[in-house]
Formats: sequence, structure tokens, C-alpha cells
Amino acid sequence: MSYISFCSDEGYPYNLDFDYGALAQLQHFSINNLGDPFIESNYGVHSRQFEVGVLDWFARLWELEKNEYWGYITNCGTEGNLHGILVGREVFPDGILYASRESHYSVFKAARMYRMDCVKVDTLISGEIDCADFQRKLSLNRDKPAIINVNIGTTVKGAVDDLDLVIKTLEESGFKDQFYIHCDGALFGLMIPFVKKAPQVTFKKPIGSVSVSGHKFVGCPMPCGVQVTRLEHINALSSNVEYLASRDATIMGSRNGHAPIFLWYTLNRKGYRGFQKEVQKCLRNAHYLKDRLREAGVGAMLNELSSTVVFERPKDEEFVRRWQLACEGNIAHVVVMPNVTIDKLDYFLNELVEKRATWYQDGVCQPPCIARDVGQENCLCSLHKK
Amino acid sequence: MSYISFCSDEGYPYNLDFDYGALAQLQHFSINNLGDPFIESNYGVHSRQFEVGVLDWFARLWELEKNEYWGYITNCGTEGNLHGILVGREVFPDGILYASRESHYSVFKAARMYRMDCVKVDTLISGEIDCADFQRKLSLNRDKPAIINVNIGTTVKGAVDDLDLVIKTLEESGFKDQFYIHCDGALFGLMIPFVKKAPQVTFKKPIGSVSVSGHKFVGCPMPCGVQVTRLEHINALSSNVEYLASRDATIMGSRNGHAPIFLWYTLNRKGYRGFQKEVQKCLRNAHYLKDRLREAGVGAMLNELSSTVVFERPKDEEFVRRWQLACEGNIAHVVVMPNVTIDKLDYFLNELVEKRATWYQDGVCQPPCIARDVGQENCLCSLHKK
Repeated sequence: MSYISFCSDEGYPYNLDFDYGALAQLQHFSINNLGDPFIESNYGVHSRQFEVGVLDWFARLWELEKNEYWGYITNCGTEGNLHGILVGREVFPDGILYASRESHYSVFKAARMYRMDCVKVDTLISGEIDCADFQRKLSLNRDKPAIINVNIGTTVKGAVDDLDLVIKTLEESGFKDQFYIHCDGALFGLMIPFVKKAPQVTFKKPIGSVSVSGHKFVGCPMPCGVQVTRLEHINALSSNVEYLASRDATIMGSRNGHAPIFLWYTLNRKGYRGFQKEVQKCLRNAHYLKDRLREAGVGAMLNELSSTVVFERPKDEEFVRRWQLACEGNIAHVVVMPNVTIDKLDYFLNELVEKRATWYQDGVCQPPCIARDVGQENCLCSLHKK
Repeated sequence: MSYISFCSDEGYPYNLDFDYGALAQLQHFSINNLGDPFIESNYGVHSRQFEVGVLDWFARLWELEKNEYWGYITNCGTEGNLHGILVGREVFPDGILYASRESHYSVFKAARMYRMDCVKVDTLISGEIDCADFQRKLSLNRDKPAIINVNIGTTVKGAVDDLDLVIKTLEESGFKDQFYIHCDGALFGLMIPFVKKAPQVTFKKPIGSVSVSGHKFVGCPMPCGVQVTRLEHINALSSNVEYLASRDATIMGSRNGHAPIFLWYTLNRKGYRGFQKEVQKCLRNAHYLKDRLREAGVGAMLNELSSTVVFERPKDEEFVRRWQLACEGNIAHVVVMPNVTIDKLDYFLNELVEKRATWYQDGVCQPPCIARDVGQENCLCSLHKK
């Protein structure tokens, strides 16, 4: 039970009830998907049919017609962001990149790699992009198109940017047809479709690309991701890059061919309903964790659309390491993934409560105030406890 | 025997005599190396000790001290090139990228991604960079530093650029201390150290980075690569990017944790001597193939330092597909890797000779002239046959 990660990058594939044994045999083959999934290459040991099958599934989920999408299975969430932002820059070469300061660092890395001007937008206490600040910053750059990274679940707080409000802000600021939106759905991209009341990610809205990780919620045993964009953008890109002597519009050339098979297998075994049930379970369990933490006097926050519970950083680094908690300043988080059961949460909670009593028993040391991170209403430090 | 690839991306790991069974069990774990191999992350299921072990091995091979190198295990050769060229650009922000026209397309992709000026340099008939043309092109851009991609084995002809001559050309053109060399050793980076007379790749020469693929000569069952550069460059890079809130100097964030274990295992099982023997075998077998092709009247070329045999493109596309030959214009190639035995070559040769007799039996259709690709001396078309 112990030493099991609470990161989103879980250490053990979730789907052990599946017949992964047969899939593990594939390890004996070097499966390599070279370049564009939709263009045949001369290397025969590939899994491109599976790759295209997975992409079709996601294109349907995000409501983009089969003949209107392009995509590929990436090596990780970062590659998805690097690709989405690159497509945005190719569509608007002089566009400015906007991203909330709680965006994944790969977004700012992309800006630097691609030599793009980048504007950081403030966030609300929830971790969502602050659209009032976004509007102010847009108004300072009316002459340049906008490329926006929208977070479908930030890394630390699991905050989901309000896509509809982002689009409204852009249109009201006079950027109609002068923006490109990349949705970084690394963690929640696959959960959000199953969450009622969430602003849906769909290509029926004016977005350019969506990426999601395959080794997080889907539980693939190697890092991977899915990237989907509009075919029209890739066609424009490819005609520009003809001198490359390749129509490869991916970022990496060689790509792991095992990942698409695992993804395809999992998607087909679980299906839409299976994911729906898992998402509901995750959200339920996350609520349970947050409630139990607060009952125990531990300040905690859970965003409405998220399964990431943010709480007071445990004082003992050994405890942090043992439970592999990601920490930032005074806060830590637990990402409640499908493998995180109530039993496991109870085990964790009991240990935390027990240890915590010893950390603060002398009364000299106090639990940290986390009001600045999660808001006064979620903080239970001596000052904010009611 | 049939349907076995002659690509460098072989479909079957070479080392089946090894106990890969035990390694395959690792598939049950999601092993993820997040970010910089030398900085601990909060995710516990990683293989960074193996990664650093592999990097140490390559740093020693390329003669860079342990405390002077930085590197990581990449997802593929492309990532190595993207990284090396990015480091070059960070060292010389206004540098111009020079690469021979037979460089891998990822080099030109990098130039576009990174918004760098890029100058294509002509090649000799062997596929090597033409340093006379390089000198001419340098002389047109004396005011800007030079970032050079040096090929340690081009994709099509396996040509090895003369690193020493490239350095000499740079220094004689007045670029002393004003250049950065990235060595793209995707295929031959690991073979060249064992080839006598080859201009050695070593950090004792003024080079900035070297990359090599792990799924080609090493035979790792998933695409991967090794990237090594000078620590001083990464330190400069990292201090520049502090605002990223991460010292991650890799391109990808999450990286496959299985690959370093396979690499480490193979390096340790084979050892330096093992690789040496394999390289010698490959070169011998490549010579055998070239000689036999020419005896059979098929035009063929083999660069002295290479195991890539270039020859007349087979007329029948079914034959090309069956043997997974990479073709370009009138030429095809076979990359003689450690798994390519004399038996396999004989089987291939016999089938080629037999089929070829039927392709050209009517006398109407002639074998193509490949003098433009490989030189008159290597062409055996009706015009150039002596």
C-alpha cells in the first residue's frame, strides 16, 4: 500500500485486470511509427493503424470530422504543447503567446524555443486564468494576433480555464479570426468530457488544437500523449515546409509504436461508458479526500471540475517522499486517479493525521497559512480557522 | 527470413540471446524520467540511475569528463538534433545554421522551428559535406557566428562528414571561437569510434554536442537516443531560463524510463569489445554486399567509413516493400546492421539477381543510370559499364 504515487504520473498501469501479458510480448519487437501517421513510410514494423484508430476516437470525442482533423501520438504532454503552439505560430507568425502563469512550464519553454513574444496572464485563486487581466493585456497588443494556451487542468491546482470566457474575451477585444487557441488537456483533457457543467472542449468552438497525456488518466505504461488539430492548419504548414523533403508535420521523427497499441486496447476495453464511470469515481473520491482533510483540520481546496486536491504541505519531507506528493511553497497536492481507492485514501489520511499530531505537538510550530494559495475560505491555519 | 527490414530501424531487437524476458516484465511499470536526469523529481518510479550510467558510458567514449558533461536519453535521433541545434542557438543567438543538403530533414525542421537563418551546403558525390562550398558560404556571412550540423553518417549514403576539415575550414575562415558544432551521429555515432582511420568524434576537439540513436546500432526495442553536450552550455542555458520555474534543459518533459534500462543492459552485456566486434562484422558484411552486387552487374557504392550500401533501385515496388528498402530517386540502400548476416545477404542477393533478370529481359527497359548519385565509377548502366 505504501510507496504508491499520488502523482498524476502513476507508477503502475491502472488496468492490470486487462491482459497486458499478451501486449508485453510486443516488447520483443521494435515498433516505430516514423513521421506522419497518415503517410506510409518504408519501415514496415509500425502500429499506424492503431495510432489512427486512437486518433479517430479522440477526434470523435472532441467533435472534429474524420476528414477535417490531423493528429499523432506524441511522446508526452510537453510534445503536445510544443506542437500546438508551433501550429499557432505558423498560422499567425507575428502572434503573441498568452498563457496564465499557472500554465505548465513547457508552454514558456515553447515561447523561448520558437522566439515568440509571450505575455503571462494572472490567475484567480482557483488557478484559472483571470480573464479581466487577459483583457487588459490584450488591449495593450491590439495590433498583433493572439495565440492562447488554455489549461484544461493546471499542473498544481487542476484548475480548468473557462474556455468560453476566453473566447468571449477575445471576440469582445476585437480579435475575431485573429486568434489561435491551444488547449493543454494533459491531465483533464480526457476527464472533462464526462464532467457535467464543465465548459466543453470541442472543435465546434473556434479552437485550433487539443493535447492530452496517455500515461495519466488512460494509464498507459509509457509516457505518451495525443495531439489533435485541424487538418487545414497542417496542410498550410506542410505546403510551407516542402523544402524539408518530407511532409512530416510531427515534432519527433521516430515515435514509440507500442504506445498506440496500449492506448487503442485500453480505449476499446473501457469504452466511453467505462471512462465516464471512472471519472465519476475520481471526482467522488476527490471530494471524500477534501472533506476528510478539512474534518481533520487540514486546509484543503478542490476545484469544482477537478480531481486534484490541494492542501497544506506536510511538514515532514520523509512523509512527502514516501507518498510522492508534489509540493510548491506551502501547498501539496494529490491527483485522484482511477487507481486511488477510498481504502488508499483512508490509509493516507490516517497516517497524515497521526504524524501531523506529532509535528505540531509542541505548539511552537504551527501549520502553515495557505490562504494566499487557496483562499481564506479554504485555509484552516490559526488565523483563518473559524 | 523474408520481410525482414534492411532499414536502420530494424524491426527486431538484435540481442535476442540476452535475457530480455526479465526486462519485458518491466512493462508492467510506468517508468517515467521527468526532466533533467541530474535533478531529482518528486516522481519515484524512474530509471535515472540507469540513464546517468548510460550517459557516463557515452561521455567516456566521446572523451568528456564526468563533471564537464550534461546529457539525457532522448526519444529519438530527431530530438537529439533539435536539442543540439537549440543549444547552439542559445550559445550564439544570431548564429547562422549551416548543414549539408544531405543532412537529416530534422535539421532543417529545427531551423524553421527556432527561426534561425539556415544555409544549405553542397555535398560531394560520396554524400559528405563539400568544404570548398562551405568555405564560400562562410565567406558571405563573416559577421555572424556559425552553427554547424556535422553528419556522422548521412541518412541515405551513410556519408561521414570530415569533422577535422570542417573545423579547419571554420578556423581558416576566421571563425575561431565563433562556431558551435553539433554532430548528428544518429546511425554511425556509435560505430565510428571503432573504425580505424575515421576522423574521431571527441570533445577534445571544439565540438558542442553529439547525438546518437539507441534503437539502431544498439538495437533498443523502442525509439530512443543519447544526447551529450558540454555542461557549461547547459549552465548558461539554465540560468537564462530561470523564469521557467524549472531547470529542465531537456526538450521533452516526460521521458520513457524503459529505454535507459535496455540501453544500460545492452552496453554492459556487450561492452566496448563487443561493439568493436560487431562494427567490424558490419563493415565486412557491407563490403561483401557491395562486391557481390557489382559482380552481378548492379551499380553500387559503399563509403569507406560506412556500412550503408547504396545501389540501383530495384524496378519492382513489391520487391522494395518486401525487403523494406529505403529509396530516393534512382537509388536504394541497405544499412548493414549487426543482425544482417551473410546468409541473409545471400538470400537477398539471389532473389535480387533472379528477379532483376526478369525485369530487364525484354531489353526495352534498361537498369537506371546512377552515375549522378554515386559517381560514374560506381555506376554499371549500359553507358558507364566498362
